[in-house]
Amino acid sequence: MWCKRADMIVHESDPYNAEPPRAGLHETLTPADSFYVRNHGPVPQLDAATWTLEVTGLVAEPVRFTLERLREEFAHHTVTATMQCAGNRREGFLEVRDVPGEDPWGPGATSTARWTGVRLADVLRAVGVQDSAGHVEFEAPDVSEIADPPQHYGGSVPLSKALADEVLLAWAMDDAPLPAVHGGPVRVVVPGWIGARSVKWVTRVTVRAEPSENYFQATAYRVLEPEADPDAAGPGDGISLGPVALNCDILAPEPGQAVGTGEVRILGYAHAGEDRGVARVDVSADGGHSWQAAELGPEPSPWAWRHWETTVDLAGPGPHTLVARAWDTTGACQPESARTLWNPKGYVNNSWARVRVNQAGDQG
Amino acid sequence: MWCKRADMIVHESDPYNAEPPRAGLHETLTPADSFYVRNHGPVPQLDAATWTLEVTGLVAEPVRFTLERLREEFAHHTVTATMQCAGNRREGFLEVRDVPGEDPWGPGATSTARWTGVRLADVLRAVGVQDSAGHVEFEAPDVSEIADPPQHYGGSVPLSKALADEVLLAWAMDDAPLPAVHGGPVRVVVPGWIGARSVKWVTRVTVRAEPSENYFQATAYRVLEPEADPDAAGPGDGISLGPVALNCDILAPEPGQAVGTGEVRILGYAHAGEDRGVARVDVSADGGHSWQAAELGPEPSPWAWRHWETTVDLAGPGPHTLVARAWDTTGACQPESARTLWNPKGYVNNSWARVRVNQAGDQG
Repeated sequence: MWCKRADMIVHESDPYNAEPPRAGLHETLTPADSFYVRNHGPVPQLDAATWTLEVTGLVAEPVRFTLERLREEFAHHTVTATMQCAGNRREGFLEVRDVPGEDPWGPGATSTARWTGVRLADVLRAVGVQDSAGHVEFEAPDVSEIADPPQHYGGSVPLSKALADEVLLAWAMDDAPLPAVHGGPVRVVVPGWIGARSVKWVTRVTVRAEPSENYFQATAYRVLEPEADPDAAGPGDGISLGPVALNCDILAPEPGQAVGTGEVRILGYAHAGEDRGVARVDVSADGGHSWQAAELGPEPSPWAWRHWETTVDLAGPGPHTLVARAWDTTGACQPESARTLWNPKGYVNNSWARVRVNQAGDQG
Repeated sequence: MWCKRADMIVHESDPYNAEPPRAGLHETLTPADSFYVRNHGPVPQLDAATWTLEVTGLVAEPVRFTLERLREEFAHHTVTATMQCAGNRREGFLEVRDVPGEDPWGPGATSTARWTGVRLADVLRAVGVQDSAGHVEFEAPDVSEIADPPQHYGGSVPLSKALADEVLLAWAMDDAPLPAVHGGPVRVVVPGWIGARSVKWVTRVTVRAEPSENYFQATAYRVLEPEADPDAAGPGDGISLGPVALNCDILAPEPGQAVGTGEVRILGYAHAGEDRGVARVDVSADGGHSWQAAELGPEPSPWAWRHWETTVDLAGPGPHTLVARAWDTTGACQPESARTLWNPKGYVNNSWARVRVNQAGDQG
C-alpha cells in the first residue's frame, strides 16, 4: 500500500495532484512516497491479474497481452529516469501574470526512479509494425473531466522514440510493484520526454500514421503565443511539447530560510532531456552579477537529473538572492527570466532558479 | 575553380576565414561562392586521384581507401545539412566585453548545402569496429599554427553519432565536386554538430576509446567559465561543444538600413541541432515588448535551418529595433541577452537577434 509523505504539497485532491517539498528531492532516487503525482482524473484501481494491454493499429495483427505474458515473452530491462511535468516551476510565472489554476507547481513536479519492465520496441517488433507507421499512441482507462470533451487520457510519441531502447512498459518502480497512483500495474516510461507522454495505467497502444488526436496531445501540453487566449486554443495550436528542456532549481537552502553568515551550502538539481546532458551549473550569491561553478554529482543515467552543490560566501547583510543556472552539452544556458518565457498555459519555465534567503536574526 | 562572391566579409586572409553578408544567406541552399569558410591553417591542395583515407585505431584491421574505392564499395547518400561555426554571431558579445580576434564573426558563420558521399557508418562497419570503441577521430593534413603546439587539425565525435545515418564522408557539395576551400576532395559532414567536427580534407579516421586529444577537441571549442583566463585554459577545461544550440538571426532588413513607414518585410534563419527542431520564431518591432509569430518556411531536412519571414508595422518614428527569437521543439526559447552568455572564447552566442533600422529620411 502506497502512502504519501506527510508534508507533500497537495495542489488538488480530486484528481490527486501533489509535489514533494524541496527537502524530498535531495536524493538521486526519489522515494515513491515523495515522488510527484500529476493526474487528470481519478486513479483507476486495476488488478494486475486481469489487466491486459491491447497493441493495435498499424500492426501485422492486433495482440492482447496479459502482464504475465509480457513478463515471460520479453527481456526485462531497468532504466533510471527522471520524470518531469511540463508545468514544473510554473509558480515562477506568477511574477509575470496569473497562471492557470491556483497554487501552481513549484520545483517539485519532477522526480527520479528506477523503472523496470520490457522494452516497448521489443513488443512492437513482436507484433509487427506496418511501413506506414509514424507514431505510437498510449491510452489509459481513466476518464478526465478536464478534457474537452471528457475522454480517456492519452498521448503519443514518434515511432523513432517508441523504438528507442530506453522506452519501457514498466511494472516496477525502485524494484517494487508500481503503485496505482504512479501508474500501476503498468505504465509507459518515456525517458527524456515530458511526463505527460509516460502514460499511466496504459491499456492500449495504437500504432498510427499521425500523432494522437487525444485532447492531452492535440490541445493540452502546448506552448501558445504570449497573447493567445488559452480557452480559444484548439487542436494543433501552439508548440507540442516532447523532449524536456534544460532546467534546474535550488533545493537548499529553502526560500526564506534563515542562514548563518559565512559559508552556506547550496544544492539543487539540473536536468536536460533527450540527447542533451547537463554540462555545468553556475551559482551566484549576488543575484547574478558574479558566478561560481558548482560541483556536479554523478550522472545516474543518461536519462536522469544530476544533483549539484557548492558553498557560497554570504559575507554582507541579508537578505541574499541565490541564483542558479545550468548549461547543457550544446553550450546553451537557461534564459534569465520567466518574463521572456511567458505562455498562457504556463509551460516550460526554465528560467534561472532564484531563492531569497535571510540571514539568521533577520526579520525580513 | 571556386571563386568567392565579391562582397564576402573576409575576417582573415591567411588562414582564409570569411562569411557572406546577410544578403548571401537568403536562399535555402547557400551557393558555394557564398558559403562561409572557417580555416585554421592553409588550404591543402590535394589531388582526388591520389587522396587516400586511412581508417585505423580500434578496428579489425586498418584499411586505406582511395576515393574510387569509396565510391565503388559503398552506397551513395545525399544529406541537406547546415554547417554552423561555434563562433557564429560572436560579434554580439562585443556589447559585453572584447572578444578574441579582431572583427568577430557576424551571423554569417553558418550556411547550408546538399552533401553527397558515403555513410561513415558503412565504412566503419566494413572495416570492423572493436567493442572498446567509444569515439571516432578525424584528422586532416593542414598544419595549424594557432594550435598549441602547432599540429594537424582534428576532432572527434562519439561512436553513436559516427554511426548515425546522416554522417557522411562527402566529396560533393550541391552536386559539384567539393572545392578545396570547403574540404575537397573529401570532408566529414556531421549534421547537427558544430562545424568544427565536420573535418575538411580528412585523410585519417581513428576509432578510439576516448575523445580526440587534438588541440581543437581538447582545448579549443569550449565554453569556459565567465571569469576564466582563456590563455591559461588547458585540455579538458570548459564545456566541450558538440550538438548545435538553438539560434536565429535576422537577414533583412540590414542593420542601419533605411526602411519605409508602414509594413516592412523581415526575414531570417533559425536552426537547432541534433534531435531538436525549430518550433516557432517570434518577431518584435518594439524591442521585445510585444511579439508576433513569423511564418516558418519549409524544413529542407531534419539537419538544416529554416528560413522565416513576416511583415511588421513600423508606424512611429524611427529608429526601430527589430528583434527575433526562436523556440525549439522542447518548448525552450533563446536567452534574451548575450550578457548572460558571456564566455571568454566567445562561443554559442544564441541570444535574441537584434537589428536596428532607420526610417527613410532619418539621419540616425
